[in-house]
Amino acid sequence: MGKPIILVHALKLSRATRIIWLLELLQVPYEIKVYNRLAEFRAPDELKKIHPLGKSPLVEITAGDGSKQVLAESGFIIEYLIENYDKSNTLTASTKEDKNLVKYYLHYTEGSLQGNLTSLLVNVMAKKHSPAGVKMLVGAVTKKINEKFFKSETLKHLDYLESIARTNKGGYFVNNKLTGADIILSYPLVELVFLEGNDRDLFEENPKFLYPYLFKWSQLVANSELYRKATKLCESK
Amino acid sequence: MGKPIILVHALKLSRATRIIWLLELLQVPYEIKVYNRLAEFRAPDELKKIHPLGKSPLVEITAGDGSKQVLAESGFIIEYLIENYDKSNTLTASTKEDKNLVKYYLHYTEGSLQGNLTSLLVNVMAKKHSPAGVKMLVGAVTKKINEKFFKSETLKHLDYLESIARTNKGGYFVNNKLTGADIILSYPLVELVFLEGNDRDLFEENPKFLYPYLFKWSQLVANSELYRKATKLCESK
Repeated sequence: MGKPIILVHALKLSRATRIIWLLELLQVPYEIKVYNRLAEFRAPDELKKIHPLGKSPLVEITAGDGSKQVLAESGFIIEYLIENYDKSNTLTASTKEDKNLVKYYLHYTEGSLQGNLTSLLVNVMAKKHSPAGVKMLVGAVTKKINEKFFKSETLKHLDYLESIARTNKGGYFVNNKLTGADIILSYPLVELVFLEGNDRDLFEENPKFLYPYLFKWSQLVANSELYRKATKLCESK
Repeated sequence: MGKPIILVHALKLSRATRIIWLLELLQVPYEIKVYNRLAEFRAPDELKKIHPLGKSPLVEITAGDGSKQVLAESGFIIEYLIENYDKSNTLTASTKEDKNLVKYYLHYTEGSLQGNLTSLLVNVMAKKHSPAGVKMLVGAVTKKINEKFFKSETLKHLDYLESIARTNKGGYFVNNKLTGADIILSYPLVELVFLEGNDRDLFEENPKFLYPYLFKWSQLVANSELYRKATKLCESK
């Protein structure tokens, strides 16, 4: 029987970048299929053939005997790939406590942080995509909802993460070793919060001045060779 | 050294119900501290003393040697408690595949399903809590955003879950055995989607007619003795 074949279904400019980054870090052979986004940033229906929800990323693993499994949910995918493919413990936390901390971040990032950020962005986009006649109106309502809920929640999370990053002096999140925690946090922080240009829509002030240690961490990730490679692979089709 | 003491910090009418339900199912001794909600359904600052984000549920475990750890994130808490306290495998899935499926649901529920439901609810509440003069206006904008995004996404998730529930004939999610998958799904489905009265705000039609198998599953959960006990414990202060 041959080795399993890993195929990543990756929507352009999506959470898939971090799965590619992870596979590059693990030095596991993989294939990648990049999908273009439709109008309004939506995923194409083609992805529904792989998994009924049609989200990205999806990881399709074909075993040596030809049997297939499809993994969905970024936190689960990252945990699964590290557990099954990190033979030399490059990305595996050393102690039981640290392993649990990584698991916590794998749940926290998509379960608590990301939802607020997504809704904040949806509301900002709602104004942008409104017809000229109602733009002011939509802007006023969504701004109020963001202030009362999604923006205030997002800032609470960023304050929380900054306090951790400060303790870590801007190093990796769990005991200064690169783990699944940094991988899952890379998308919301590097690609949404600190992405040049995004700050103008989401924050009054540039977030790199508001969250200097988190920004330092994000540079550590964004400037690494394999992260840059992953970003490029996820953009090309 | 004594046995560890488990203390659940539970916000009234919150995701904490499912952690209480889990501990009841595991027959593990625990204590519970219930917190009242503030205006606009917010959590009191008191919870921030336990964990900086001040969310519910939080599980504080004091070991025999007096050392403490605080667990946050429902998916992680459920996984941790089952891994560490399900000595007789009452709730543990039998095969490796089923164990992975449970892990998937632990990530999926908070990472994909819940965010859309929360944002849908926030938008519905935004109209309700608006001053009379702008209520119509806020309602029109939030309705449009919900239709284009949060409601359509939520319905996509419920269609997906209904198709699984149909295959399961309304039984438990993973191989018809009660696992962490049912526990994590209980809050969004039993308490948000199928809660009597909620349907009028969120859906045009009563969701029990739209999603009959999912409703059948939700009844299985909601009518069980220990779930009812957990709900009562989480409401009383």
